[in-house]
Amino acid sequence: MTEAFANEAAALLGDKGFTRDSDTIEPWLTDWRGRYTGKALGMASPADAQELSALVKLCVKHGVPIVPQGGNSGMVGGATPDKSGRALLLSTRRMDVISVDPEAREAKCGAGAILEHLHDAAEAKNLRFPLSLGGKGSATIGGLVSTNAGGTQVLRHGVMRSLVLGLEVVMPDGAILDLTSPLKKDNRGFDLKQIFIGSEGTLGIVTAAVVKLSPAIAERRVVWTGLGDLHAARRLLLHCERELGGALEGFEVLPESCYRTVIDYLPGAKPPLESHHVWHALLEFAADQEQAATLGDRVERCLAAAMEEGLFDDAAIAANETQAEAFWQLREMIAPAERAHARAVQHDISVPPADMPETLSVIEDALAQEFPDHEVRAFGHLGDGNIHLHVLAPANAADDWDFGKAKEVSARVYRIVSDRGGSISAEHGIGQDKLATLEETHDPAALELMRTIKEAVDPAGLLNPGKLVPLARGEANT
Amino acid sequence: MTEAFANEAAALLGDKGFTRDSDTIEPWLTDWRGRYTGKALGMASPADAQELSALVKLCVKHGVPIVPQGGNSGMVGGATPDKSGRALLLSTRRMDVISVDPEAREAKCGAGAILEHLHDAAEAKNLRFPLSLGGKGSATIGGLVSTNAGGTQVLRHGVMRSLVLGLEVVMPDGAILDLTSPLKKDNRGFDLKQIFIGSEGTLGIVTAAVVKLSPAIAERRVVWTGLGDLHAARRLLLHCERELGGALEGFEVLPESCYRTVIDYLPGAKPPLESHHVWHALLEFAADQEQAATLGDRVERCLAAAMEEGLFDDAAIAANETQAEAFWQLREMIAPAERAHARAVQHDISVPPADMPETLSVIEDALAQEFPDHEVRAFGHLGDGNIHLHVLAPANAADDWDFGKAKEVSARVYRIVSDRGGSISAEHGIGQDKLATLEETHDPAALELMRTIKEAVDPAGLLNPGKLVPLARGEANT
Repeated sequence: MTEAFANEAAALLGDKGFTRDSDTIEPWLTDWRGRYTGKALGMASPADAQELSALVKLCVKHGVPIVPQGGNSGMVGGATPDKSGRALLLSTRRMDVISVDPEAREAKCGAGAILEHLHDAAEAKNLRFPLSLGGKGSATIGGLVSTNAGGTQVLRHGVMRSLVLGLEVVMPDGAILDLTSPLKKDNRGFDLKQIFIGSEGTLGIVTAAVVKLSPAIAERRVVWTGLGDLHAARRLLLHCERELGGALEGFEVLPESCYRTVIDYLPGAKPPLESHHVWHALLEFAADQEQAATLGDRVERCLAAAMEEGLFDDAAIAANETQAEAFWQLREMIAPAERAHARAVQHDISVPPADMPETLSVIEDALAQEFPDHEVRAFGHLGDGNIHLHVLAPANAADDWDFGKAKEVSARVYRIVSDRGGSISAEHGIGQDKLATLEETHDPAALELMRTIKEAVDPAGLLNPGKLVPLARGEANT
Repeated sequence: MTEAFANEAAALLGDKGFTRDSDTIEPWLTDWRGRYTGKALGMASPADAQELSALVKLCVKHGVPIVPQGGNSGMVGGATPDKSGRALLLSTRRMDVISVDPEAREAKCGAGAILEHLHDAAEAKNLRFPLSLGGKGSATIGGLVSTNAGGTQVLRHGVMRSLVLGLEVVMPDGAILDLTSPLKKDNRGFDLKQIFIGSEGTLGIVTAAVVKLSPAIAERRVVWTGLGDLHAARRLLLHCERELGGALEGFEVLPESCYRTVIDYLPGAKPPLESHHVWHALLEFAADQEQAATLGDRVERCLAAAMEEGLFDDAAIAANETQAEAFWQLREMIAPAERAHARAVQHDISVPPADMPETLSVIEDALAQEFPDHEVRAFGHLGDGNIHLHVLAPANAADDWDFGKAKEVSARVYRIVSDRGGSISAEHGIGQDKLATLEETHDPAALELMRTIKEAVDPAGLLNPGKLVPLARGEANT
């Protein structure tokens, strides 16, 4: 049966579109962090939605599961097939066209278009696509849609969902759903594109997206501040939102421990502040052409008022673009620096922003009591209530720490977050990594509705099986 | 069976929560424009989601269809039951609590909370809820969510969907789905609240919503301009978006014919401009406290540059708030003035904004040829690509014009709009009014997916039957 499918797929897609060569396929069978490895009966790279439509019909005929993959830079194993070798790995990389409409401030992108290429294409028209993240050199538009990606600019511009105007999707039966007409108002029944955004390829395969662009940034101010605690950071955030809300582009926080780790890790890194602080916050304010001339003054007024109210202990405004980039570099290097520093278990959690400082205290207290030799480090997007919480393995941790103690730590963290109405996955998604945790912590009515939709839309269960949607109790996720 | 259900419902909800008194129920059985009248076996007004949950379970037990109703001010008969008398009319009016969190800039509202009351509650905290429409004195938050309402401020703030942070929903089996935790980032699988927004009560009954508030407007400038044609209006819009995009709050257009009708209709109305123009545009620019001081200058600069480029023929900036209100009054009175002026068939259509002028020409040409004695009047939200297109009955129109020629006119309009990738319902929804048109014009793959979701989520079909979702071919919508 595999042979029959492979022959038909090869005939349909040609050499460019289908391969069974294991050297070619192998790099794509392990996620970039090396945590999941699977097998596939072949790899398809269709040229467009029409080819994919025909391919999906072939998969339906032969009962072949499909695992869609963009840049393979996800965090939860969502694009890695299982070990059975029954699935087809579906790469979107050939669907990579980008066309920018500067007047409408929109871009139409193939699913395989690389985020950084979209940034460049927008910039060439004096516009920008206001979503960015560490993996921008590999992450694809299709992947960003399917995972509803976040990043460091969500505070002002929202997550991927708020930037998507239209989608083209190949359905589990091969039908092509064209929702690309970029209408600003359309109340013809359910807004169908919403169900595909963030659904990790379990309901349909995104082949193209129309996204919203913003005016280019003409001027920015990047500020580093030192603070006493996270409550102070929250007060500073509210102050900036009140005083200069339309310009506040980012508000990132990190504790002294993360800060030190980055400074030590990064060759030639310079501390933005001479003084020492328990917490640090990185702020960015930005303005387009029309507001550019006054931005500097407005930021200085905003910070002076904050200083007067004692909302931070010390602050430095980057003197130029080089220094601004250096400030951001410190933030962006936290993850690799932390990875190099110590073994850790990572959590990408969110709660309502007002509750973030309190939640973090509760987590720290609980872990200090139950796992006294584990260090907690939390950094991330305070403005979105989204914290990346790393718990470091003790120096003498056992070899199987990752699969033992670390799991216990995570269970405790996720329980606290869920009990406070928070999310066990703020921006990384569920994939295969958090499937069991989702099942344990999610509202049963929500789980039930997810299953109902999945089973109705993909009754054969061929689209990205074993990801995102916990099966009904009693069935095994394979 | 009806008696048994009524007795159980009365016992469950008490006198305040359930009535079969025909005088009490009757006003709610006809939509406000008097176009649809239905019957109901009773009217329930549960106090909260828990009571509604128990009631829905009772409906399931007895097979009683449920027609949810908010302010009964919809445009498409979406809240009017059919004539069978089998359905229960479900009023959300008792769930009307509003609580504002000024720090988080959020409000939690019961489904029955009136839009105008939310405006007032936000204003009291120096905030605003940036969605408004003609029916604000009766429209409820639940209705606005269920219809994904638009209005005149969509250009800057988006439709209802973009303002909803969380929902509480009672499901077709009575389960309560609590999605009210207002997380800014949450990638735990499908964003379930999205399927209820705009689904007109066919998938679940919204009982509460958490919505986003904005800073209060501290300063605004309302401008009336006279233009040669709609292409000029489009160029002026693009100019304003480029020059002053962050402040552009509204951009409404109307032709001279609508303008004259309003001036004649409104006692004491004063023309904003002395000169005569083929088209008129009403612009609003607004700023919160931080940007207020400079708004006047910025608007004047923006208009001066537009004047220099010949983007309009004449313009008047409202000298004070009274005049600003008077300008808006002219816009808001178009619908009632037109209704008083002549019999007409109305269309609430949208296309990509760039295509609006061209689409309108095509429609006008087609109708001039095929219905030469019918006058076309188009006004509305140019910035959103959303035009309210009225086609006036000729003076000598037959009595059955509404059900004869008018239907032919509409079919022609909808066909043109659909062929150009537009929507047959930009903001009014589908309800029962446009159900057949949706089926005729919509992408079959999209219709199929709508049906699949409806049948999976509400397999007994008890939630608002005969609205929004065309049944599979062969089945009659009753």
